[in-house]
Amino acid sequence: MKDGKNIDSAEIVTIGTEMLLGDLVDTNTAWISQRLAGLGVGIYRHTTVGDNPDRIVDALREASSRSTLVITTGGLGPTSDDLTNACIATLIGREMVEYPEAREHVDDMFAKFGREPTENNYKQALFPEGTALIPNPVGTAMGALLEWEGTLFATLPGVPTEMKSMFDETLEPLVRARSEGRIVSKTLHFAGIGESALAEKVQDFLDATDPTVAPLAGQGRVRLRITTRAATEEEAWEKIAPIEKEVVSRLSGYYFGEGDETLEGAVARLLEERHATLALAESCTGGLLAKRLTDMPGSSRYFTEGLITYSNESKERLLGVPHGLLVEHGAVSEPVAREMAEGARRVSGADYGLSVTGIAGPDGGTEEKPVGLVFVGISGAEGTFAEKLDLTAWARSRDSIRERSTNRAFDLLRLRLEDEQS
Amino acid sequence: MKDGKNIDSAEIVTIGTEMLLGDLVDTNTAWISQRLAGLGVGIYRHTTVGDNPDRIVDALREASSRSTLVITTGGLGPTSDDLTNACIATLIGREMVEYPEAREHVDDMFAKFGREPTENNYKQALFPEGTALIPNPVGTAMGALLEWEGTLFATLPGVPTEMKSMFDETLEPLVRARSEGRIVSKTLHFAGIGESALAEKVQDFLDATDPTVAPLAGQGRVRLRITTRAATEEEAWEKIAPIEKEVVSRLSGYYFGEGDETLEGAVARLLEERHATLALAESCTGGLLAKRLTDMPGSSRYFTEGLITYSNESKERLLGVPHGLLVEHGAVSEPVAREMAEGARRVSGADYGLSVTGIAGPDGGTEEKPVGLVFVGISGAEGTFAEKLDLTAWARSRDSIRERSTNRAFDLLRLRLEDEQS
Repeated sequence: MKDGKNIDSAEIVTIGTEMLLGDLVDTNTAWISQRLAGLGVGIYRHTTVGDNPDRIVDALREASSRSTLVITTGGLGPTSDDLTNACIATLIGREMVEYPEAREHVDDMFAKFGREPTENNYKQALFPEGTALIPNPVGTAMGALLEWEGTLFATLPGVPTEMKSMFDETLEPLVRARSEGRIVSKTLHFAGIGESALAEKVQDFLDATDPTVAPLAGQGRVRLRITTRAATEEEAWEKIAPIEKEVVSRLSGYYFGEGDETLEGAVARLLEERHATLALAESCTGGLLAKRLTDMPGSSRYFTEGLITYSNESKERLLGVPHGLLVEHGAVSEPVAREMAEGARRVSGADYGLSVTGIAGPDGGTEEKPVGLVFVGISGAEGTFAEKLDLTAWARSRDSIRERSTNRAFDLLRLRLEDEQS
Repeated sequence: MKDGKNIDSAEIVTIGTEMLLGDLVDTNTAWISQRLAGLGVGIYRHTTVGDNPDRIVDALREASSRSTLVITTGGLGPTSDDLTNACIATLIGREMVEYPEAREHVDDMFAKFGREPTENNYKQALFPEGTALIPNPVGTAMGALLEWEGTLFATLPGVPTEMKSMFDETLEPLVRARSEGRIVSKTLHFAGIGESALAEKVQDFLDATDPTVAPLAGQGRVRLRITTRAATEEEAWEKIAPIEKEVVSRLSGYYFGEGDETLEGAVARLLEERHATLALAESCTGGLLAKRLTDMPGSSRYFTEGLITYSNESKERLLGVPHGLLVEHGAVSEPVAREMAEGARRVSGADYGLSVTGIAGPDGGTEEKPVGLVFVGISGAEGTFAEKLDLTAWARSRDSIRERSTNRAFDLLRLRLEDEQS
């Protein structure tokens, strides 16, 4: 393989009827794509086909006509509908032959599991003549590497743990050795501004072709991805740095982090910097804020407790919201949001209390208090504050109202923490 | 569209560089595929291309050469890299023209959000000449329906909530009216049994070819999907019924529902039938149980409150867990799980208390109490019960431990509720 063609473009072909029918969501392709992009390989296309030999051969032929690397996932198992390697043999006109090394690997893996292979299992030792094997440290299915008409085919299993370790151990070093240049990209995260309003402020960058800047919006957040290609990673980062700086400066206040950063991650970081703790009082979000905070390892350092007060009685008993206030203003109101935040802070002894109360729907809305009306409260040493959110535009999606409320609540707390810090 | 060709085959084309680079996992395609399969439409291929006009046109041309229906997702936004409709215009040789109805829709949606559209936003009113518009009840991007050379193109936005409601309201009725024969499938849900153990009990059905029965496992649950095709829906259901009956009878106790049923849905149904209420006490799951219960509309009928006691101090103060017990056994222990469940029930006055305490990792594990050790407690009028879960096999995934703990907790409560009912 050493003297093979330069790898500059790739396609991923997913093989499996269960993917085609939507019984499984394909997460392998996104994972491989991220890796390849980081290696400077352009990705032209993803294709999924079922366990049908003619359609598999067609997809492989088409992919190889466009790209110098074709990676397949799936179809390497021992059953009769596992056809990937046989289809490559058909496409490139070679025989399927048994590889003793692969047969031994099947035996070894079965011995490790304490089981006996059946004759079926040795199907996983058959590969097109001329294959270089890709070791599988996790499972029985080895992969194949084959060059044909300027394209390198690599077959990987569909099981994510097996696929990933085979990619990391064999494919990545190979691609690295055979590719020129690096694509580098950086993602910047913003909240509190819509996609169009954000786009207007950085339209010149969105229109530029190198680096490219692409927006992506969802549930009250917008991401901008800056991407460029250069001979070395250093050069690529040097092209990105000034654009990042200018974009962040034009959108300061909305910017909350880069890379894998999340709103709850930004809140966590600010709380940790201040050695501060947070308690939550949730009504319509019903635990979503707490869930997202505790998705992160180590959240016990700043998160003490969450009170999901779904009934009025709970709001009174657990948070000390005055009965009269609930009667006068209703549970979904600014004064109750304030009391909930203060209550969470007071009963827990945390430095900050964050509350959400609203109508997530689909039922429970009235003309005066429609589905999508939400209040967020924040309480801290410097006082209590509440904001009314109008999410009535998403009244048809309970999920959207809950997600957007959560995002806005975290963003308001982030702004408050940043404010108090400066 | 009424007199269009019979729809018997479909492809899905995903458009967006963020998908191609793996920044987002494409869940839309699996969702659409499941729907189409259920409508009896054969799915030949999924394709993903980036925001590149030539590559989009190529992918659309190829898909239309194979299939009678081509559905695209993505590329309907207001920015310059949103190209889907323009690429269809290029492919089929039509002009892009403004649709007043779509312009009005943009205005209406902005008015609803209380914002002003910019000139950019009206790009979403441009479609190829001859388009039938697909209404978007959720967002600004309407979709396009266009017939060309025996293929129906349908363009949908990439935002899942928008895509789904547009598919359900416009595309599904259209496909239903224009397809022959029916594929029907039914999904049965099981918990508390592994995939292999389950497969052994129904191997004869898994080996059969009509109806097909396919297992799919994840996070402590197993689904079986029974699928068949017939001239009419009635005939198809008649083929499925006896198999469903036999499968459920062989796996009784593990079976908890069909279709879209979830474990929390089964718990909710049982609680409602008993007019019973539930309170939660969560530690390592940090709100995940509450979040999943309150994902469901109407959960306030049976869910009163959730106490996320992340610190020992919270467990004492909010749930009355004795200080000595925490010192003696530690927070992750059977006695504490029991006390947490009893505490949740006592302080809330709910009929049942459900608790989870464990070590979700990646840190915090010891030799005696490793990452993956979890206890679930259930308290009700008939007493308190706790179960130890050994999830150490998933010690590398905090998410898996939290998901599996949540599933097992709901399943144990489901079994308890079913037991008490019978």
